[in-house]
Amino acid sequence: MAELTTAFGDRLSTAEAMRRQHSSQLTWLESQLPDAVVFPESTDEVAMIARVCNAHLVPMIPFGAGSSFEGHVNAPYGGVSIDLSRMNAILEVNSEDMDCRVQPGVTRLTLNEHLRDTGLFFPIDPGADASLGGMAATRASGTNAVRYGTMRDNVVAVTAVLPNGKIVHTARRARKSSAGYDLTRLLVGSEGTLGIITELVLRLSPIPEAVVGGSCAFPTVRAACDAVIATIQTAIPIARIELLDELSVQAVNRYSGLGLAETPLLLVEFHGTPAGVAEQAQRFGEIVEAYGGGPFAWSEKLEERTELWKARHDAYWACLALRPGARPIPTDVCVPISRLADCVEETKREIAELNLIAPIVGHVGDGNFHVQPLVDMNDPDEIETVKAFIARMVERAISMDGTCSGEHGVGQEKQKYLRHEHGNATLELMRVIKRAVDPQTIMNPGKMLEKDT
Amino acid sequence: MAELTTAFGDRLSTAEAMRRQHSSQLTWLESQLPDAVVFPESTDEVAMIARVCNAHLVPMIPFGAGSSFEGHVNAPYGGVSIDLSRMNAILEVNSEDMDCRVQPGVTRLTLNEHLRDTGLFFPIDPGADASLGGMAATRASGTNAVRYGTMRDNVVAVTAVLPNGKIVHTARRARKSSAGYDLTRLLVGSEGTLGIITELVLRLSPIPEAVVGGSCAFPTVRAACDAVIATIQTAIPIARIELLDELSVQAVNRYSGLGLAETPLLLVEFHGTPAGVAEQAQRFGEIVEAYGGGPFAWSEKLEERTELWKARHDAYWACLALRPGARPIPTDVCVPISRLADCVEETKREIAELNLIAPIVGHVGDGNFHVQPLVDMNDPDEIETVKAFIARMVERAISMDGTCSGEHGVGQEKQKYLRHEHGNATLELMRVIKRAVDPQTIMNPGKMLEKDT
Repeated sequence: MAELTTAFGDRLSTAEAMRRQHSSQLTWLESQLPDAVVFPESTDEVAMIARVCNAHLVPMIPFGAGSSFEGHVNAPYGGVSIDLSRMNAILEVNSEDMDCRVQPGVTRLTLNEHLRDTGLFFPIDPGADASLGGMAATRASGTNAVRYGTMRDNVVAVTAVLPNGKIVHTARRARKSSAGYDLTRLLVGSEGTLGIITELVLRLSPIPEAVVGGSCAFPTVRAACDAVIATIQTAIPIARIELLDELSVQAVNRYSGLGLAETPLLLVEFHGTPAGVAEQAQRFGEIVEAYGGGPFAWSEKLEERTELWKARHDAYWACLALRPGARPIPTDVCVPISRLADCVEETKREIAELNLIAPIVGHVGDGNFHVQPLVDMNDPDEIETVKAFIARMVERAISMDGTCSGEHGVGQEKQKYLRHEHGNATLELMRVIKRAVDPQTIMNPGKMLEKDT
Repeated sequence: MAELTTAFGDRLSTAEAMRRQHSSQLTWLESQLPDAVVFPESTDEVAMIARVCNAHLVPMIPFGAGSSFEGHVNAPYGGVSIDLSRMNAILEVNSEDMDCRVQPGVTRLTLNEHLRDTGLFFPIDPGADASLGGMAATRASGTNAVRYGTMRDNVVAVTAVLPNGKIVHTARRARKSSAGYDLTRLLVGSEGTLGIITELVLRLSPIPEAVVGGSCAFPTVRAACDAVIATIQTAIPIARIELLDELSVQAVNRYSGLGLAETPLLLVEFHGTPAGVAEQAQRFGEIVEAYGGGPFAWSEKLEERTELWKARHDAYWACLALRPGARPIPTDVCVPISRLADCVEETKREIAELNLIAPIVGHVGDGNFHVQPLVDMNDPDEIETVKAFIARMVERAISMDGTCSGEHGVGQEKQKYLRHEHGNATLELMRVIKRAVDPQTIMNPGKMLEKDT
C-alpha cells in the first residue's frame, strides 16, 4: 500500500465512503469493501499497480461505472479497487473502417454523443450508462442485441494488463482474423478474473436512415413470444423487441405517466431505409394480428419513440417504486427462444403462488429475460423464499438448454449454478485457464469460478 | 498402435495412399504423413483415441475434409490422423430457435441440402465443401461473411475432446450467455491444437425471400474499394461483395466461358424482401457510378446468379489453369478496409515487378484478400522469390494494422508471423493457454504456436 500511495498520492483513497461506493449494493450480501481505491490514468499505471499487487499477493478488482448486478465489484478478500473512470479518452474514430479506439472508462452515452456527427453509433445498450470496459468485461448486451449482437460481437480487440503486469493486445484492427487463439473473446466476459481491460477497439454501425417503433399488447406472454419467433423466422431484421409483463407495464405507466394497456406488451423498433422500415412495420403488424395481439401502433416521431424507450430504460426505477424501501435483486436467465414462453409462464406462476412482487422484462428476441424481485430485507422468511425462487428459475432455464445468465454475468451470485450448467469437465477447463493466467488468484478473486457449492 | 488396431479394426489404416491423402498438399513443404489414419464414429470413440494417445504421447491430428490451406493436417511428428468424416449425422434441427446440432464430418453443402425445406440455411461459405468441424477449427469465413459473420459468430456451442480424453460442452443452446469464459470462441479457430471438435450447435439464418446479384467493372482496385466502403457506410446490408483482379477475371472468363470485362470487378449479392433488394441494388448502382465504375448489371434470375457465383467459387481451379503443372500456394491477409486498396495495389505492383503469376480475389467487405501464386516447384529461384514476396505481403498487412490471415489460419506456414502481429506478451499468453490445456503437446503439434523463427 505504501508503494501505491507513493506512486498515486491523492489518486488513492482509503476513505470509507469511497470504498463503499466501490462495492456492490444489489445482491444478498452486505457490501464487501476494498481496502483502497486507486485511479490510474494510463495502461502503464495499471501495469504498475498489477506488478505491485502481484509481488504482495494483493487482490485487484477492476471497477468501471459500478452498474453491474451480480456482485462483480465486491471485495470479499479486500484488496485494491482499480477505478478506470479517469481513463476516459476516445483515442480515435476510423469512420471508413467503422471502428473506434477508446479507453475503458468511456461510457456508452459519451461515445455516442462523440460519434453523432460521423453518421455512426455504438449499438450496445444495456440500459445503464455503463463504462465500455465494464461492458466488455461482463459481455453486456441489452435491447439492440437481436440485431447488432452483444459485446462479444462488437469488440474487435482489447489491450489488457495481466495479473503479472504484462500488457497484451489481443488483436489488430482487421475486421476478422484466423491468426491464433481468440483472446479478445476470452477476455470479453471474463469479469476481471483474467486481467484488466485498459483499451478497446469497438465496431461501430451506421446510424439508420429511418427508425420507426411502437408497442402492441398481447393477451398472453405465449402469444407475444410466438409472434416474436414468427417475426425472426420471416427474416424481418427487427432492431429491438422487448417484452414487459403486466406488472412492469403497470409500473412504467405509473412512473412515466403513460397509458399503455396493462397486459403483456412488446416494444419494438425497426431500422432501415424509409421504405424498408415501413415494410417491416407493416409485416410485423400482420404477424401480431395473426397471433391475437395488437393493434400495432407505430410512429416515426422521435419524441414518441423516445418516450417509450425512456420508459423501458426507466423500468428498473419504475419497478423499484412498486415497493419503496425494498431491495431490488435484479437477475436474468436466457433460454432457446422456443422455450421462452414456458420459462416465463412457469416463473410467473410461481411469483403469483409465492405472492412476490417481481416484475419481468425481457430481451425476447434473444430468449433472455430479467426478473427483479423487490425484497424486504428485514424479513428472513421472505429472503429465503426469494432465494429459493431464483434458484428454481435458474435451474428451470438450465434444464431448458438455457443459461444461468444471459447478460448480467456470474459475479458472486451465480457461481453455484455453473456446475449444473457446464458440467465437471467444462468447469475444470475454465479453471485450468484461470490458474494458468492467474496462478496466484489475485484477479477479482471470489468471482465466477471460485465457489460452486 | 496395437490398442487402436484392436479397437478399430479396419477403421484404422496405415496404407501409404491413405496416409498421403491425410496430409497437406498445398504448402512449400513436402507432405508430412501421419503414421495411421483412424475413423471414429462417436465422441466416445474420439475420447478413447485421445486417452490412448495421451498415455503413449502420440500426436493427434484432427482431419475434416482436408480442404485447408496452411498445412493444418500435416503430421510433422507423425502420429494419428483422426478422420471425422464418418461422424456425419445431422442430429437435430430446431427451426423455431434457428439452430441445429451436427457432427463435425457434415459438410456445409450437405447441411444446406438437408435444411432446404425448413426455410433456413447455414450461411458460411468458404468455397470448398468443407466439413463443419474443420470450418469451426479454422474459424472459416468466405463470401457471406460481410453480412452473416464468420464461424466465430455462427457457432453457438461445441462438444470437444481434450488431449486427456475428457469431454467438454462449451455452452448451452441459448443464443447468448454471460456464464463463464467463452470456451466456444476459444476452440473456434484453435486449429485442433487444444482439442478435437466432435459436435457443433450452429446458428441458422432464414433463407432470404428475394436475392438479386450482379457484377460491375471498375477502372482501378482503389475505385472498387472506395465504392465498397461507401456502400457499407450507407448501411446497405449487402450480403456478398467480392473483388476479382484483372487476372482472376481473365482466368474465370477462360475457365467458365464468361464474357466479363477484364478489369477489377465486384461481384455482389443482396438478400431481403423483393422491394428491399430492388432498393439496395438501385442504391448500390448509384454509388458504383459515383466512383467511376459500372454500369451495375443485376439480375433476379437464379441461373444467371448461379453462373456468376459458380465462376467465383471455381476461381481457384480457373487460376490453376493459368499455369498447368505449377503448384498453387493460396494465402490470405486481412487489413482494415480503409487500407485495402493500398495493400492490394502494392501487392499487385510487386507481382508485376517480379513477373509472378498470382491472381487476387478478395472478400472486400471484410478487408480480406487472397493471392494464389502459381509456382514452378522445379525452380529454386522462383520458390525463393515467391516466399519472399508472401513474407513482404504479410508484413505489409500487419504494418497496416491487419493480420497475417483473415480466414485460412496459421497452420504451419504462418507461424513465423505471429510474433510480429501479436507481440511477445500476447504470444506468450497464447502459449500459456496451450500448455495448460495440452501439457504434453500432443494436439496437432508443430502448428500455430510452435515455431516463430
